[in-house]
Amino acid sequence: MDTRVAEHRLRIQRVQDALVSAGAQALLVPSSDPHLSEYLPERYQGRQWLSGFTGSMGTLVVTPTQAAVFADSRYWTQAEAELQGSGIGLVKIASGASAEHVDWLAREVPRGGTVMVDGQVLGLAAAQHLRDKLQVAGVALRTNVDLLAQAWPGRPALPAAPVYEHGTPYASVARADKLRSMRAAMQAHGATHHLVSTVDDIAWITNLRGSDVNYNPVFLAHLLVGPEQATLFVGAGKVDASLAQSLAADGVVLAAYEQAAATLGTLPASATVLLDPKRVTLGLRQAITAAGLVEATNPSTLAKSRKTADEAGHIREAMAEDGAAMCEFYAWFEAALARGEAMTELTVDEQLSAARARRSGFVGLSFPVIAGFNANGAMPHYRATAASHARIEGDGLLLIDSGGQYLGGTTDITRVWPIGTVSAEMKRDYTLVLKGTLNLSRARFPRGTPSPMLDALARAPLWAEHLEFGHGTGHGVGYFLNVHEGPQSISKAVPTPDMAMQPGMITSIEPGLYRPGRWGVRIENLVLNVASGNSEFGEFLAFETLTLCPIDTRCIERSLLRDDEVAWLNAYHATVRERLAPRVSGEALAWLLRRTEPI
Amino acid sequence: MDTRVAEHRLRIQRVQDALVSAGAQALLVPSSDPHLSEYLPERYQGRQWLSGFTGSMGTLVVTPTQAAVFADSRYWTQAEAELQGSGIGLVKIASGASAEHVDWLAREVPRGGTVMVDGQVLGLAAAQHLRDKLQVAGVALRTNVDLLAQAWPGRPALPAAPVYEHGTPYASVARADKLRSMRAAMQAHGATHHLVSTVDDIAWITNLRGSDVNYNPVFLAHLLVGPEQATLFVGAGKVDASLAQSLAADGVVLAAYEQAAATLGTLPASATVLLDPKRVTLGLRQAITAAGLVEATNPSTLAKSRKTADEAGHIREAMAEDGAAMCEFYAWFEAALARGEAMTELTVDEQLSAARARRSGFVGLSFPVIAGFNANGAMPHYRATAASHARIEGDGLLLIDSGGQYLGGTTDITRVWPIGTVSAEMKRDYTLVLKGTLNLSRARFPRGTPSPMLDALARAPLWAEHLEFGHGTGHGVGYFLNVHEGPQSISKAVPTPDMAMQPGMITSIEPGLYRPGRWGVRIENLVLNVASGNSEFGEFLAFETLTLCPIDTRCIERSLLRDDEVAWLNAYHATVRERLAPRVSGEALAWLLRRTEPI
Repeated sequence: MDTRVAEHRLRIQRVQDALVSAGAQALLVPSSDPHLSEYLPERYQGRQWLSGFTGSMGTLVVTPTQAAVFADSRYWTQAEAELQGSGIGLVKIASGASAEHVDWLAREVPRGGTVMVDGQVLGLAAAQHLRDKLQVAGVALRTNVDLLAQAWPGRPALPAAPVYEHGTPYASVARADKLRSMRAAMQAHGATHHLVSTVDDIAWITNLRGSDVNYNPVFLAHLLVGPEQATLFVGAGKVDASLAQSLAADGVVLAAYEQAAATLGTLPASATVLLDPKRVTLGLRQAITAAGLVEATNPSTLAKSRKTADEAGHIREAMAEDGAAMCEFYAWFEAALARGEAMTELTVDEQLSAARARRSGFVGLSFPVIAGFNANGAMPHYRATAASHARIEGDGLLLIDSGGQYLGGTTDITRVWPIGTVSAEMKRDYTLVLKGTLNLSRARFPRGTPSPMLDALARAPLWAEHLEFGHGTGHGVGYFLNVHEGPQSISKAVPTPDMAMQPGMITSIEPGLYRPGRWGVRIENLVLNVASGNSEFGEFLAFETLTLCPIDTRCIERSLLRDDEVAWLNAYHATVRERLAPRVSGEALAWLLRRTEPI
Repeated sequence: MDTRVAEHRLRIQRVQDALVSAGAQALLVPSSDPHLSEYLPERYQGRQWLSGFTGSMGTLVVTPTQAAVFADSRYWTQAEAELQGSGIGLVKIASGASAEHVDWLAREVPRGGTVMVDGQVLGLAAAQHLRDKLQVAGVALRTNVDLLAQAWPGRPALPAAPVYEHGTPYASVARADKLRSMRAAMQAHGATHHLVSTVDDIAWITNLRGSDVNYNPVFLAHLLVGPEQATLFVGAGKVDASLAQSLAADGVVLAAYEQAAATLGTLPASATVLLDPKRVTLGLRQAITAAGLVEATNPSTLAKSRKTADEAGHIREAMAEDGAAMCEFYAWFEAALARGEAMTELTVDEQLSAARARRSGFVGLSFPVIAGFNANGAMPHYRATAASHARIEGDGLLLIDSGGQYLGGTTDITRVWPIGTVSAEMKRDYTLVLKGTLNLSRARFPRGTPSPMLDALARAPLWAEHLEFGHGTGHGVGYFLNVHEGPQSISKAVPTPDMAMQPGMITSIEPGLYRPGRWGVRIENLVLNVASGNSEFGEFLAFETLTLCPIDTRCIERSLLRDDEVAWLNAYHATVRERLAPRVSGEALAWLLRRTEPI
């Protein structure tokens, strides 16, 4: 057993001891923090710290005698590798959204037993579901203790990075106007107050950004919007005096981060609080004692999904900068490979990130670079590490999924490149995935179409050949904000009214195909919902493809593409060439011209 | 005001008087009966009797001062015509499944008021939803009175048609085996008893058929399956002595139809009843006093949706008989038109139904013939009547949607035929709808795909041209049973686990396009889920097109079809010719050969 695995066995043992001392039969450790974020501050990476499984989603359950991680198909290969020898089981679940650990707990914990979970990091809706299921099974739920606190010596403190203004020209709607529209939505719901805990909602409403977590330019805070004034609960010293002053001018006062619960307990009895049960924790919900309550989706979630025309302009600029970075990188990469330079997946990460960092408006990466050669490309959420990565040599496919945060937008792009000789089977897979990307990219649809309805359009060309992929086809993307945001989702998600497609939404289109142990293919662009036209049947939308970067044509099996598909691809490449050529020169320009040749 | 409208005004007035006498503020009249059937015995056609709106779905709400029908887009044109002058409003709702009348009641009925509805015809799930919504609005619900009974003199009695065995060779699974599998499902749910009120479930479980309602070969009954014995609650005299004896041999005893509620009240306290809250009424649910309860989809609903290989064989035979009837009819129809004979939509109904009636195994129609010429074709659920129908003359499109009940299967087919000269715009609409039918018919998909996911594949070719239709793309079809059955649905329905596509399911594929006041197009086939093959990504299904009848090629705008689409159509026509030619002769054969020529 290696040291790493032994350490995790020890940590689990320590938690099991604490569990027994507490008289409970199971501990639930969600991938979650007080803001229900995707990227967690280190302090809240308890599931990872305990189990050693580093995937971005996954739930850990510990009982006195066993431990198991619940993860969806994106993580199966990774989880099996990382959990090997630890004694921690892997429970394969259908999707990241499915709560199969709840059924597991209801089944495994004996009637009369107790399940513990820290209510400060448990979403209200998830807590209600958990409580209901456990109740039926005769199992109690205890949420007022953070068992990890006892078992985790030297647990990291909360991050303390400064908060800054996301100002003009990028913020096209003033903070005061956003607060006004939030209050209009509150009024429509009959609410006097609105509690927001999700950090991207808070960043969007306040036109502020931060760097408390990796990849998402956000800061830890809660926001309570009242009828006249809004209170931002944020760590001491993170907002400087000058920024505090301009916030005050817009009616936003500061309070200590830890004061949120106490303040919620002092609201007048006549107050009615609007909150989103999927975006507020049980802990904060329970802090609200006297007030009325309205549960609804955060108004900011829908509002921020619909980018303004002004924002779309900045995003197009950011996409061109991002595309130029890709040209610079790939030109270097292909030349270096041709010169026979040693190259690993880590080199790709370093050089590509460096090329992005040279572009105007760049702030940081929007998620960890995924550079997976052959078998590593078959793990959709693979990340090369110093300890484990592949050399890029011989023959095969190199999948690169990467993105940047720019002041004027967030990017996310996946491309696959041929290394050496590419087999007929690889070309076939590549071309069928490309057909999926094209088929959906070209779609038009009625405004208001439930976004999950569109999923089949990307899958149909793969299904026709008995192929399938285990992740969603597309996620919403923020504006210099989270690379994954709602409410829309082109996936097998059960549609809700919020998921309706509206003008201005930005979504990824990223079908894939994964041959475990062999190679992976994914071809991803971001698209903007734009007006397509009206008819007697209503208003229709189309996708404007925002991402600007060649899609490799050497991997294409031409006989699998119809003429209309080739025409779309050639037109796309003509646009990419036209938009990127003015921004690159020398080898990068030569590469761009070469890779945008029509086929 | 015509007499008909005056009569409906009077009936509404009478109900309003009864409502006021009862001290209530609203009456809800759903399109429903004690079995929650689609086709209602006359006794339960209260909504139609009161309002005059004859659509097959729709809800009536009456208050002391107003009345309104809630109907989805399939019925808007029809409802506007039928309700005109009656003072009854039409509330346009998004789909037949949406319960917007509930929100309406919660909004319009004053706090402290009472809504009345007959609990004997109100589904349990619908009742729970209604009660919850009204409770929030401070409105009471009264379900123990049938207000219609007072207001409806001469209300029809219950039907009394005989029940008969659906025997060999058609019933491929014995009644005793079906009961055994029901009990296995009950056991899996921890239930000792299972209450079934839906008449198609009962017909399927018992291998019995009847003719109590139009179009569906079912009989009114409730079925209580116990651990050893099953009780069929059925009208006196409907089951003859010999049939009663063979039922008894399989452990099925008879009881009076009216005894169902009383018997449910005598179940032992230790009993646990499995019931489907969408398929049992509030009235019967309330009759169960002492027993435990498990709510789940009727096991028979899923079981009967999956036709056996033996049943599929009988269905293919029925489809060929049905196709032969179509050839006979169309050959006559085209010749008669050419001779200049006067022809109306009613003639189509008569002649087509007569052609079906001559086929082997024919029992009856599976729904009323829809023959709509031009503007009438734009009403998806149009039905010509003696009082109102169109002559088929001049130029345009004739839409015919029809189907038969055969001992070996149920058919449902829509075709559109050119009359005189067809305009370029008509051809374009026709071809785009055809592309939708083809695109979905050719799809393959993983076993277990949620059926609503497939809906977009039929719509995409229409969406591309800013066109859309307001009904679902496909419904399940029974085996010599209801022409509409679940659980699958290719539509915008919110997917549930039951809706997963499984081998053996039969579904319609029927995209359409409706130009109000001008013409309508719909092209419909029935398809069977068959194995397509396995891969490392699992098991895949494809559609076998069961319906055998030419799709008119004169209405096609060839330039809108891709070569692969034309190839599919030509291959389909080759199959239709090969399968139907042996069954027809003379003019019908000549017509078949002419209409199956490749293009």
